[in-house]
This record gives sequence, structure tokens and C-alpha cells, in this order.
Amino acid sequence: MHYFEDFAVGQKFDTGRRQVDAAEIIEFAAKYDPQPFHVDPEAAKASLFGGLAASGWHSAAMMMRLIVDSDFRPAGGIIGGGGELAWLKPVRPGDELRVEGEIIELRQSRSRPDQGLVKIRLTMLNQDGEAVQTFIPTLLVNRRPG
Amino acid sequence: MHYFEDFAVGQKFDTGRRQVDAAEIIEFAAKYDPQPFHVDPEAAKASLFGGLAASGWHSAAMMMRLIVDSDFRPAGGIIGGGGELAWLKPVRPGDELRVEGEIIELRQSRSRPDQGLVKIRLTMLNQDGEAVQTFIPTLLVNRRPG
Repeated sequence: MHYFEDFAVGQKFDTGRRQVDAAEIIEFAAKYDPQPFHVDPEAAKASLFGGLAASGWHSAAMMMRLIVDSDFRPAGGIIGGGGELAWLKPVRPGDELRVEGEIIELRQSRSRPDQGLVKIRLTMLNQDGEAVQTFIPTLLVNRRPG
Repeated sequence: MHYFEDFAVGQKFDTGRRQVDAAEIIEFAAKYDPQPFHVDPEAAKASLFGGLAASGWHSAAMMMRLIVDSDFRPAGGIIGGGGELAWLKPVRPGDELRVEGEIIELRQSRSRPDQGLVKIRLTMLNQDGEAVQTFIPTLLVNRRPG
């Protein structure tokens, strides 16, 4: 577990890998984003994506799970106020995803003296090394007590 | 269905409402964001949230479903390149969510002459009228053929 004081700008971390399959893409989208290109492989061929693609929110959720399962363990949990999210390439059935993280900014919290703000750049890559998604959140991280 | 030419800056739309329950919060988080404050009501009491709260990605996914089920129907589907996401308040069991959207910018696409870029501000509110989440995506919308 890492307190705010343990982080430094430029530190990097990696996650494990996660395989994407069509069944999970369709299951997620049926619940939260039931557009034809996310739930119907045939209809998806005629769409902008040219074939079944994961909902961007599914991609984001898979990114989160990769990070939660990684060695990136800020004190207090991985809690963010938001950030800039970008979907760069479709996530397809058969893709194998992983995430690279880099600390890009550290600030004291003005409103919470026991916490600091850690800004990170998260890049999710597929098996071809292509960046499919980026997210640059600011996380609230506990300071070392005392 | 609305083509790019049908949109104007300042246009607003609303969605229906969606009830959040603890079972769905826990089910989503168990798959994608299994941190104690999202999956364990007891452990959540000792966290920053002070009680069970939905994963931010679950909140985002519920926002998407509310929009997909609304009358907001851009031609070609709701397809975004990303945007600025902010989590402002915890989403709790028992909350009733709805989304307000407003078109804030329209641009031609340089790379795709058959499409335009529609920037919208999406605000998800709870039953007390508090904004719990905002997202400001830029969507790719088909132009009227011909």
C-alpha cells in the first residue's frame, strides 16, 4: 500500500492482461449500451466500426479491473474525481488488453490536509501495442499518518 | 433519428429515470471494480464514502443506458471519441438517476466529410436534484445524405 508521500512524478506501473470475448462485449452492452454495433455482430458490420466493438464504458470498466488487480495500491483505495477519457481504437473480440500507468503530477489537497492528489496517465493497449483508450484521472490518496 | 444538420447549440434533452439498488452496485463492482467500498456495505462505512457507493464506471454505464433509451437519437448511433468525466457525489443504493443533456458546440469533421462533431454536456442528477456526474463528450454524427 502506497501513501501520497510514496509517489513521485515519472513513476510507472503495469497491469496484467485481460482477454476480451464477444460474449462479454454483448452481455455488458445489453445491460448498459444496447446499440447494434455493441450487441449484434451482423448489424455491426454495417456500422462505423465495421464489426462488433466493445462499448467504451465496457473498455473503461475493463481498464479499472486491470488496475484494481495490479500492484498499484494507493492508500485509501483507487478513488478519482474524474479526468479526460479518450477512446482511440475499437476494442474487439479476441483482443488482449493491458494498461500502462505513469504518475504525471502530485499536489497537496487544500480541502483535505490528510490527502494528496495524484494525477496519472493511464493507457490501455491491445495485443498489437496500439493504444485503444487513455484516461488521465486525478486520484485522492491518503497521506502517511502522523 | 437526427442528422448533424438537425442539431443546434443550446438544444436540450432529458432521459427517463433509473433506480439504483445495492445488488446491482455490488454485482457491477464485483466484476469490474472490486474495492471494499463498492462491494461490502460494512467495509464501506469505514471508507471515504461512509457507506456503499457505486463504482464511477457503473455510474457512467447507467448514464449511457439512460441516454440510449431516450429520444436523443443521432444518426449513426451514439459514438463518442471521449471527453471530460467528473464524479461529483457518490451514487448510493436507493438513488433515482436521470440525465440532462445540452448541445454546446457543433463542428464539421475535417477527416470525415460525411460527419459532424457534436459536443454535449451531460449531467446526471439524483432524486434530490444534485449533480452526481458530468461528462462532456464529442460525438461523431452522420450528416444528412446528399
